[in-house]
Amino acid sequence: MRFDEATATTPVEGSIGLTKANLRDGWSINGNANGGYLIAVAARAMVNHVGRPDPVTITAHFLAPGSPGPVTIQTRTVKEGRRFATATASMTNADGRQLLQVLGAFTDLTKASGPELVDAMPPDLPPVEDCDSLVDRQDFSPELFRQIEVRLHPEDSQFAVKPSGVARSRGWFRLPNDEPMDTLALVMATDALPPTVFNANLPLRWVPTVELTAHLRARPAPGWLRCEFRTRFVTGGFLEEDGLVWDSTDQLVAQSRQLALVPVG
Amino acid sequence: MRFDEATATTPVEGSIGLTKANLRDGWSINGNANGGYLIAVAARAMVNHVGRPDPVTITAHFLAPGSPGPVTIQTRTVKEGRRFATATASMTNADGRQLLQVLGAFTDLTKASGPELVDAMPPDLPPVEDCDSLVDRQDFSPELFRQIEVRLHPEDSQFAVKPSGVARSRGWFRLPNDEPMDTLALVMATDALPPTVFNANLPLRWVPTVELTAHLRARPAPGWLRCEFRTRFVTGGFLEEDGLVWDSTDQLVAQSRQLALVPVG
Repeated sequence: MRFDEATATTPVEGSIGLTKANLRDGWSINGNANGGYLIAVAARAMVNHVGRPDPVTITAHFLAPGSPGPVTIQTRTVKEGRRFATATASMTNADGRQLLQVLGAFTDLTKASGPELVDAMPPDLPPVEDCDSLVDRQDFSPELFRQIEVRLHPEDSQFAVKPSGVARSRGWFRLPNDEPMDTLALVMATDALPPTVFNANLPLRWVPTVELTAHLRARPAPGWLRCEFRTRFVTGGFLEEDGLVWDSTDQLVAQSRQLALVPVG
Repeated sequence: MRFDEATATTPVEGSIGLTKANLRDGWSINGNANGGYLIAVAARAMVNHVGRPDPVTITAHFLAPGSPGPVTIQTRTVKEGRRFATATASMTNADGRQLLQVLGAFTDLTKASGPELVDAMPPDLPPVEDCDSLVDRQDFSPELFRQIEVRLHPEDSQFAVKPSGVARSRGWFRLPNDEPMDTLALVMATDALPPTVFNANLPLRWVPTVELTAHLRARPAPGWLRCEFRTRFVTGGFLEEDGLVWDSTDQLVAQSRQLALVPVG
């Protein structure tokens, strides 16, 4: 299923800011909807409500795991400015359980301009065909990786048998069948690679996200994205995962950070 | 005035989550309340409302500049979990203008534990007495720096006459008179140094913050904090400022990122 279908939202007639959506099968890790996918669905509802096409900074708090099925998104406009609209949203499942609380600012990124200063490089990845797919792997193959195309750097892909020792996850990302990628697809890309800390020498099975903030800097040029995620601080039961996403023209298109829990044991 | 007085909040009797506060004179840059100070006031109201002492991740969107005077903070609990309480807050001034929209998760950080992995070092700062105060400087001396104690790395402090060429701001931070610092003081510390890009070779006078997210990892040990802020990406009219705050025991206590606007011209 295409990303734009999987994240489609429908306004509820007669309401102010109430939207329906369906969390689709397959956009999940072991049955739980992927976090980036959840944010993309909420962001679609917010974009439509405020009438601005691009989130420029969006923060989501994860309150409960999401399963496939219907959800509602209640969006509220906080401020309609000249340049930005600021809005909140809450996503609730059919049982009335809130999954997500979101806060974001929306704009039209094609109108952005200013001086440029970039003090970093895209990750040095081997060609796509020399990187590793996560489909049909014996050791780690969540259903999500049938919906999106991810190719991991070979140094980072063997975490299940031989962690690299560096808390890092690098790889290529695109939507299948050359589906165009907008800034909502970029939000998805900021949470689509396996957790960085799977490559660290730590006794971790999963790292539930508390909060993710993504900054979207530009709409990506067509083609594969290059993604790099790093963790520098595992302390006090928490870790951060810092992400950079670059497009095929070497433009930084997204920067993200999430705070995740380190389950003990 | 002490930080805990300057950020004091009073619940409005009979209300649910409505709190009053006063933005104090002097916690400002050229008359506009400092962003970290605004968040700390809102966070104080949220902490008191949810009954958990520490923000662990807090995001604020800046909607309008704040001037000294009375404000109200309306807090709403989104979720009361076992480990975290999640809440939103909006701060409004006496004219009914909304200044801030906040989303945060709150907990008791003294109960946190887990494996440790730290892949970074505190900034290498000269001793406090060899660093530069911002009080009574001819070229840059906002009133804020009479309320907090900041000592800038000499390499980063001459931005008004001779920018270092690196978009970086490093320095010591503490509250005057040995006032103890809690996690709300840490929020303040994540926005207390001069903007990183004042040291870059860019034609910038000021960089209004759109959004700031701070992760608080631990309550700081007594003594000076060491702070380091970096900007790697000035693109499309936006820049990020990434911060790390370390305490006197070399413990990382806060990590922050803000998205700011690059005014053209």
